[in-house]
Amino acid sequence: MKSTIITIGDEILIGQILDTNSRYISQSLNRLGVVVAERTSIGDNAEQIVSTLDRALAATDIVIITGGLGPTKDDITKHTLARYFDSELVYNEQVAEFVRELLGRRGIAFNDLNRGQAMVPACCTVLHNAHGTAPGMWFERDGKVVVSLPGVPFEMVHLMEDAVEPMLSEHFDLKAIVHRTMITSGIAESILAERIAAWEDALPKVLHLAYLPAPNVVRLRLSAYEVDGESVAQMIDEQFERLRAIIPEAVVGFEGATVEQLLHNIFISNNKTLSVAESCTGGNLAAKFTAMAGASQYFHAGVVSYSNEAKIDILGVNADDIARYGAVSESVAIQMAEGVRRVGQSDYAISTTGIAGPGGGSAAKPVGTVWIGIATPKGSFAVMKNCGTDRQQVIDRATAYAIKLLYDNL
Amino acid sequence: MKSTIITIGDEILIGQILDTNSRYISQSLNRLGVVVAERTSIGDNAEQIVSTLDRALAATDIVIITGGLGPTKDDITKHTLARYFDSELVYNEQVAEFVRELLGRRGIAFNDLNRGQAMVPACCTVLHNAHGTAPGMWFERDGKVVVSLPGVPFEMVHLMEDAVEPMLSEHFDLKAIVHRTMITSGIAESILAERIAAWEDALPKVLHLAYLPAPNVVRLRLSAYEVDGESVAQMIDEQFERLRAIIPEAVVGFEGATVEQLLHNIFISNNKTLSVAESCTGGNLAAKFTAMAGASQYFHAGVVSYSNEAKIDILGVNADDIARYGAVSESVAIQMAEGVRRVGQSDYAISTTGIAGPGGGSAAKPVGTVWIGIATPKGSFAVMKNCGTDRQQVIDRATAYAIKLLYDNL
Repeated sequence: MKSTIITIGDEILIGQILDTNSRYISQSLNRLGVVVAERTSIGDNAEQIVSTLDRALAATDIVIITGGLGPTKDDITKHTLARYFDSELVYNEQVAEFVRELLGRRGIAFNDLNRGQAMVPACCTVLHNAHGTAPGMWFERDGKVVVSLPGVPFEMVHLMEDAVEPMLSEHFDLKAIVHRTMITSGIAESILAERIAAWEDALPKVLHLAYLPAPNVVRLRLSAYEVDGESVAQMIDEQFERLRAIIPEAVVGFEGATVEQLLHNIFISNNKTLSVAESCTGGNLAAKFTAMAGASQYFHAGVVSYSNEAKIDILGVNADDIARYGAVSESVAIQMAEGVRRVGQSDYAISTTGIAGPGGGSAAKPVGTVWIGIATPKGSFAVMKNCGTDRQQVIDRATAYAIKLLYDNL
Repeated sequence: MKSTIITIGDEILIGQILDTNSRYISQSLNRLGVVVAERTSIGDNAEQIVSTLDRALAATDIVIITGGLGPTKDDITKHTLARYFDSELVYNEQVAEFVRELLGRRGIAFNDLNRGQAMVPACCTVLHNAHGTAPGMWFERDGKVVVSLPGVPFEMVHLMEDAVEPMLSEHFDLKAIVHRTMITSGIAESILAERIAAWEDALPKVLHLAYLPAPNVVRLRLSAYEVDGESVAQMIDEQFERLRAIIPEAVVGFEGATVEQLLHNIFISNNKTLSVAESCTGGNLAAKFTAMAGASQYFHAGVVSYSNEAKIDILGVNADDIARYGAVSESVAIQMAEGVRRVGQSDYAISTTGIAGPGGGSAAKPVGTVWIGIATPKGSFAVMKNCGTDRQQVIDRATAYAIKLLYDNL
């Protein structure tokens, strides 16, 4: 079964917001077994909505639309859909009551614009939006389905989970889509492709291989569309085992297991603990770990020692060493790691100190220079990395290097 | 002048990656004065690439394509474009030399696959990619332009800046696109729309108003497409001044000025300093400030006191109070803020302590319960907020609330 995702909103076309809805819906449909043939973003423009819908319904069976359901004049999706399906808008008492109650809890009066939100096309099935004022809508025509959802991400997510996913599974006879991604590191994409060419050529026709390169990492994804899920998942596992035998030194793990997730699992299963001291990464390193549920089992403390005083007072870095070697130095990186390992009472510690830019660089230490320190029960050391020229790039790369450096030295 | 953006890659359609390229290119084209009429993401599929290109060239004058230019078999964009433009692939010595040199620096041998990357359609203008092995390509037909760029985001960004933007400005006679966004807070979207209805109805026809609601914030954007930039920018300023007179209490500022950016500017211009102590936000609060260039002028220290020991040892929180009230409590939030204000030697401090979930909740303190503490030269206090049910949502909302709470209490 094939689908099209249409996200509506001028704010997408001018780049004011990042279209995360398309990604979420893609993942959701793939899990269900629905192939996403195309994703399209268009403006709040009735003509464009109609022509895109015509095209989507000609090529695919399922169309998921988000956006343009708000109470204001720039929101035209609902009126356009009503005309598209030759249906008139009718007042839905249940929607009105719920919106009145939802607004009442926030102390907001129900007005004419909210009344407008309770008007829905007579021909659609209303999908209850428990988290907002715009209901979702489910339309059917010739066995095909068009779903319209609000653009507010968490409202869309709840409607997908609570209504759209179960209804699609019920309405269509869906097969499985299987994706599995092996993470490799240390072999450049072109060299890797040469080494695994014979394996790639011998892959069963049902499996599609994709290369996903990133700095120092190439991810290899095997995909199969609309298949029997269990037998194909097993087939993919077997192929990846053969691949592992060809490039044993390069296999880092599988997706759903980023390096920080691998560390997270190791710390929990080995009952070890971690603290981090950050200068240039400014909290990002701590945030990578604390984003994962269960981090409180091993993550003791993070210190963002941005000022020299914080390095000295909180982490016990030697003031003379800062004066002698500079805050961005091997010595300070090591002392920061050892300091936070001590004050955080943890087994392992990571530190970062560098020049994120745009200011602060010099000929000897240009923007992007980052010292990463590691402290372990066996001792401590630091490594210098050049992490690029752009502030956010430096922060992201230093964070990634630091996590990988600890992983390689556990 | 109208354009279409096409991003190619199965990894987009299955939701494995977030399509940030489309957003970047949208912003870039808008700055140049090129209207983005549609954005489309399709798979690595020759038929789909051809039909999408046909449609894009029929409707618009400029087509920007990213993705599918790698050295491996799943990358088919270049071959498809060569056939589309009836052009054969020819070996480009300059590209080959550059790739050989680039790989050499990394100690990687130049192989047949890299040689394939130096093959380019004879009819195109090659765009030098200083940061990767796949060159960009510029095609022209009947005065219309098709540009193909690699999908690796930073390679695409450099090619847009260094080649595509100046070449488009040279090739087309472009007018201006103007967007300006006012940020309001504290008035619900439907109530706001009622209050400003007369102003909205009286807007000059060239200006388009959009409402962009988010939790506790409604952004109002005025846009004008393909106009004389200077006079329209002035017109927008005048309209926003009229609007400010209607809703003076709700105007927070303008986009390009998020609340953390406003704080950033205030701290720098008033020569005040900040430290933060985080439990549930786990480094995100520090990261929001340290992401901004110049943060080192006022951001002294962040402490991610995830464990109770870290709260006690680093921040000086009273162990008895943790036992009596719990780590997620008014008393601990205040002591964390005061503690980090002291050890960070700063004028202001923010703290967060809460239950991000999915575990750790109770009937009295469900997941999402967050205490936010503020310490200032005049004293300290804490506020409790329920920040939702999903771990990342709780982290993001608590971070946003904490920043706003400090802003409101400076």
